[in-house]
Amino acid sequence: MLVSGRAMRTIWLEDDGAGVGIIDQTLLPHELVTLKLTKLDEAAHAIRSMQVRGAPLIGAAAAYGMALGMREDASDAGVESASKALLATRPTAVNLRWAIEDMRRILLPLAPMARADAAYRRAAEICDEDVAINRGIAAAGLPLIETAWARKGRQGRVNILTHCNAGWLATVDWGTALAPIYLAHERKIPLHVWVDETRPRNQGASLTAWELGQHGVPHTVIADNAGGHLMQHAQVDLCIVGTDRTTASGDVANKVGTYLKALAAYDNNVPFYVALPSPTIDWTLDDGVKQIPIEERDATEVTHIAGRADNGATMRVRLTPEHSPAANYAFDVTPARLVTGLITERGVAKASRAGLLALFPEMKEKRAGE
Amino acid sequence: MLVSGRAMRTIWLEDDGAGVGIIDQTLLPHELVTLKLTKLDEAAHAIRSMQVRGAPLIGAAAAYGMALGMREDASDAGVESASKALLATRPTAVNLRWAIEDMRRILLPLAPMARADAAYRRAAEICDEDVAINRGIAAAGLPLIETAWARKGRQGRVNILTHCNAGWLATVDWGTALAPIYLAHERKIPLHVWVDETRPRNQGASLTAWELGQHGVPHTVIADNAGGHLMQHAQVDLCIVGTDRTTASGDVANKVGTYLKALAAYDNNVPFYVALPSPTIDWTLDDGVKQIPIEERDATEVTHIAGRADNGATMRVRLTPEHSPAANYAFDVTPARLVTGLITERGVAKASRAGLLALFPEMKEKRAGE
Repeated sequence: MLVSGRAMRTIWLEDDGAGVGIIDQTLLPHELVTLKLTKLDEAAHAIRSMQVRGAPLIGAAAAYGMALGMREDASDAGVESASKALLATRPTAVNLRWAIEDMRRILLPLAPMARADAAYRRAAEICDEDVAINRGIAAAGLPLIETAWARKGRQGRVNILTHCNAGWLATVDWGTALAPIYLAHERKIPLHVWVDETRPRNQGASLTAWELGQHGVPHTVIADNAGGHLMQHAQVDLCIVGTDRTTASGDVANKVGTYLKALAAYDNNVPFYVALPSPTIDWTLDDGVKQIPIEERDATEVTHIAGRADNGATMRVRLTPEHSPAANYAFDVTPARLVTGLITERGVAKASRAGLLALFPEMKEKRAGE
Repeated sequence: MLVSGRAMRTIWLEDDGAGVGIIDQTLLPHELVTLKLTKLDEAAHAIRSMQVRGAPLIGAAAAYGMALGMREDASDAGVESASKALLATRPTAVNLRWAIEDMRRILLPLAPMARADAAYRRAAEICDEDVAINRGIAAAGLPLIETAWARKGRQGRVNILTHCNAGWLATVDWGTALAPIYLAHERKIPLHVWVDETRPRNQGASLTAWELGQHGVPHTVIADNAGGHLMQHAQVDLCIVGTDRTTASGDVANKVGTYLKALAAYDNNVPFYVALPSPTIDWTLDDGVKQIPIEERDATEVTHIAGRADNGATMRVRLTPEHSPAANYAFDVTPARLVTGLITERGVAKASRAGLLALFPEMKEKRAGE
């Protein structure tokens, strides 16, 4: 997507054919700083410190991290230690594990001297595969926005509410929830995005608002509390959010607060869509509320917040009384009954086992074969 | 309620019989600073700058402001100019207007030399009346907490979720939504309060957490996004919130985000109560969503936030990208169908016209006489 008018991805191979470029996302939205990673350690640090974040981007960064590792030590021991170092950065990230295992599968059978080249090639493929999936989600979701636009008699603009950041910054390019929005914008459908700030980490206020702004998509940042009021007053035509994990029955685990927006959408007859790359479907799960464990993160994400002071410095300030405890549940589960549809790279599925199996019939056989 | 172990109100007559003490609430939760108001101008400033806030407390402060005004100029012109100065501070505050009109009604018939004394007496009465109403709400709400405690077999603790600040800091003492909680705490029912931080002004994180902490009530601050998850997992036994305006049909306008919590409570069979002094019922309104205009406040409340830096200074920082617009809807309306009951000083009413009229039969006659 565009940044200051220039097309960018979130991760790229530098012109020297070895270094890996990334955006330091911890400095957004106040500053755009790109970094050139040249060592395995730097890639591990970038993932650990959340300079890169978002499941698909973490996977891509880990793949390139393996490539950087192969330049330093392409022996079997080198593959092992690079895998271990990268896996330790965000141990619960599914895409991280998947990307590292995929790289190992490709690298270990090769002679050490062939490994670095193969690793760079495969990392580039992983990036391109992510972009292809997201373009598929964009194409599948576009008709939903076109329908909303037609329903309004092509008057005014389509108002779309989103939560957290499921944009291109969370992927290699295009994003998941924002992919159909970027495509609709490209197709000149007038639209406007309500961006939930998404406390406590504020990914909406910092990342989603920044990327929409850079690409020229009209948007407005709101407190997470405001969406219900907007829906009561017909200010939201549809919601599109991302998901970290989807059950075979269509329940959706996403950033905490998603469930509240889905309830408000349901109460006001606003379509509520969830965009996802099909690999994030967990075909072994049936009941998201009961079966998906919700990560509790550090309470300081609630008690403190960072922002830019008037003098340009980035400051962290305390919001709560010194002795008041805080709790920080990172995700919640939105039951399938509140989800209008799941936007996948193959099309839009009903949020149910039958709906998903209609799009992914191979999973039926797989399950039968278990 | 207690502050550092000592009972305090939010507003009091100083020992000199003339000055009016307040807590500068803009400095909470980081610093407890009390101010002595000695002039009309200082009282007006305290209301305008939100050193005192919360509908009942604003009314009490305006009453004492009139008393301070009478010490400076007790002529008819003095009554007029004091009224005008105070009314201009928060022109939409219903309690402010009511308190000033009440004072004028009492003062204008008196000889100027008798006005200052009468004003101080009436201001003290207004404070005591507020406390009496809140004690009534406490008594009416206590059985709801006792019931929740009994339902748990008197095991563990009663978990109560609240939004914004409807505590003693918003009133003269006791509060509205928090009044039954303070009384239950006094009666040794083990309880714990989930405090919504309440973006964008963070009254929960700053004021509710502070006052509960000072009084020794166990509590945990959470992002506004977290309540749905907690209710899905049986971590909330009941919700109690306040309200700024209640329709005759039981719809409730309260701080933005209240509606989302009410939806989650309804979806999870968690009782959702709204505490209110009966004077905030607007008997002329029937449909809150359609009839209650929602104030839009300054967008900088969303784009910026103040907190305490590590060096002890209070800093304001920017959270959003420089060119991203923000919108700031201050309230939302929770339809009566989502409200389990209205806790008033006369008892708990069903959230309906019939329910309210059963407690306030005199309003039936009044309406019939209109």
